[in-house]
Amino acid sequence: MAVYTEVNEADLASFLGDYDLGHVLALKGIAEGVENSNYFLHADAGYFILTLYEKRVDERDLPFFLGLMEHLSGHGLNCPQPVRNRHGGALGRIAGRPAAIVTFLEGMWRRSPSVRCCAAVGEALGNLHRAGAGFAGYRPNALGLEAWPALFDEARARADEVRPGLAAEIAKELAYLAESWPRDLPEGVIHADLFPDNVLFVGDELSGLIDFYFACTDELSYDVAICLNAWCFESDGSFNTAKGLAFFSGYESVRKLTGAEARAFVVLARGAALRFALTRLVDWLNVPAVALVHPKDPLEYVGKLCFHQQTGSARELGLLR
Amino acid sequence: MAVYTEVNEADLASFLGDYDLGHVLALKGIAEGVENSNYFLHADAGYFILTLYEKRVDERDLPFFLGLMEHLSGHGLNCPQPVRNRHGGALGRIAGRPAAIVTFLEGMWRRSPSVRCCAAVGEALGNLHRAGAGFAGYRPNALGLEAWPALFDEARARADEVRPGLAAEIAKELAYLAESWPRDLPEGVIHADLFPDNVLFVGDELSGLIDFYFACTDELSYDVAICLNAWCFESDGSFNTAKGLAFFSGYESVRKLTGAEARAFVVLARGAALRFALTRLVDWLNVPAVALVHPKDPLEYVGKLCFHQQTGSARELGLLR
Repeated sequence: MAVYTEVNEADLASFLGDYDLGHVLALKGIAEGVENSNYFLHADAGYFILTLYEKRVDERDLPFFLGLMEHLSGHGLNCPQPVRNRHGGALGRIAGRPAAIVTFLEGMWRRSPSVRCCAAVGEALGNLHRAGAGFAGYRPNALGLEAWPALFDEARARADEVRPGLAAEIAKELAYLAESWPRDLPEGVIHADLFPDNVLFVGDELSGLIDFYFACTDELSYDVAICLNAWCFESDGSFNTAKGLAFFSGYESVRKLTGAEARAFVVLARGAALRFALTRLVDWLNVPAVALVHPKDPLEYVGKLCFHQQTGSARELGLLR
Repeated sequence: MAVYTEVNEADLASFLGDYDLGHVLALKGIAEGVENSNYFLHADAGYFILTLYEKRVDERDLPFFLGLMEHLSGHGLNCPQPVRNRHGGALGRIAGRPAAIVTFLEGMWRRSPSVRCCAAVGEALGNLHRAGAGFAGYRPNALGLEAWPALFDEARARADEVRPGLAAEIAKELAYLAESWPRDLPEGVIHADLFPDNVLFVGDELSGLIDFYFACTDELSYDVAICLNAWCFESDGSFNTAKGLAFFSGYESVRKLTGAEARAFVVLARGAALRFALTRLVDWLNVPAVALVHPKDPLEYVGKLCFHQQTGSARELGLLR
């Protein structure tokens, strides 16, 4: 949670000069989002989010992200809609950073999602995959299967500081996944980071999906596995089968998984767990111990990986097939 | 900038059960305020700020702060208005912390205030002092003259790490102020922290004053001195006389300073500079060098103190008398 770049009134006036939003009525930095600086913006024209893209985001990817949000919101998905300026663009610069304005979505993210929330997020992910089908943009997954060995190299030497034996466990899993990873599954646009803090609810109703800055083109069922891992485990590390059942049932109410996807699902879930274990491990080892922002615990995802290593089939996760 | 305490949906529902605000439509942590956790809250009834009071705020002071905001807003000042719950109280508890809801004020704080802004803040401070006149609450200034020696004791041994000779300079100034501090000046409710980030503007119009959590009972002209120091110096450390003139003129359009206040003003300005130099010095020496939140530079306020040590009379600051 952070605002990395301060926006002053002169920067803002110059940036908003290209937009038809009227006067600025309020601007407040938001303590959410770890990659970019986000401001709540109230103007005559309504409520918006102003995002300044910080160094961890590759500027060349921004047209993909903004084009995707525009495509998805144009196809009925509740997600932030980029606001175009008078020149027809959705991307500008403010305070030296690339920046965009998107519509503000109502809702609050759920710290303790219920079974019903899991059904709703499954359905929303299905809708995202369906709405994304006609999107022409392409972006390879920079954090997919091929990227994992290099991520591991960044952490390998010190992984055992986090838990003795961890480096060997990960090396073994990487070898298994390289050999077992499914090919030729249906691909398309995936969110790739649909964690609870990226899904908004008003009461029990899902009101929107946010933060498309890991979105890319990859296997749709891999996205399903990422989302299942993020929503259907309890905070004590146990898997909640009722949540799994609700999640799959929500997803399949929109898009049925193919037989090949169902058969490959446990491998996908292992890969999805390893991907977050690896990025968290790298962050964990690279943040000073006294820093005020603490990185997320990599062992949470190592635990999910171990769980899936014991899983016999997706049926045990709640996929009735 | 921070959110220290996470609020989950169960905590929020239980807390809001005592209020008539309708459904929660949005809740977002705000990256402003260094003492408390602040959330932007949108409910059926409108836009609000939910504040959780963290450990640096003494819970026994909260009725004073909330009562003051209610009094001031009831007397026409644009400041956050505490929302009373069904039991008639404005203070509750959420996630283990004392908490209150206040109305959301439009506006953006000015990173580079203009001369016109200085006139507006002077006038607003005059209005605050006038509106506060009938407030029955009393709170001694915990960071006033009597507190400075103890603050200095916390920093004395290491002050010269910040600048060689600083400890001796401060000791000398403390002795001077103890001897020269004016008595019997008009007292009342003061804001005590009316820096630019606590004053909101929509365009060039001042839209509100916020953050009353240093407010207390003290000399009104000391508050004027704090505010002058915060608004009328440029970022290079120079004093801007045009801003000083505009500031005093704005203040005196509401409340004329007495002759005694004017004669004592330079001493008050020295004390006001020393007070912020001391608290910043203590913070500076107590925050780990690698922390992601950097404390404010104490030398900015040491520089303002040195400037006032050279000032002959308040006339040089823009007080035409």
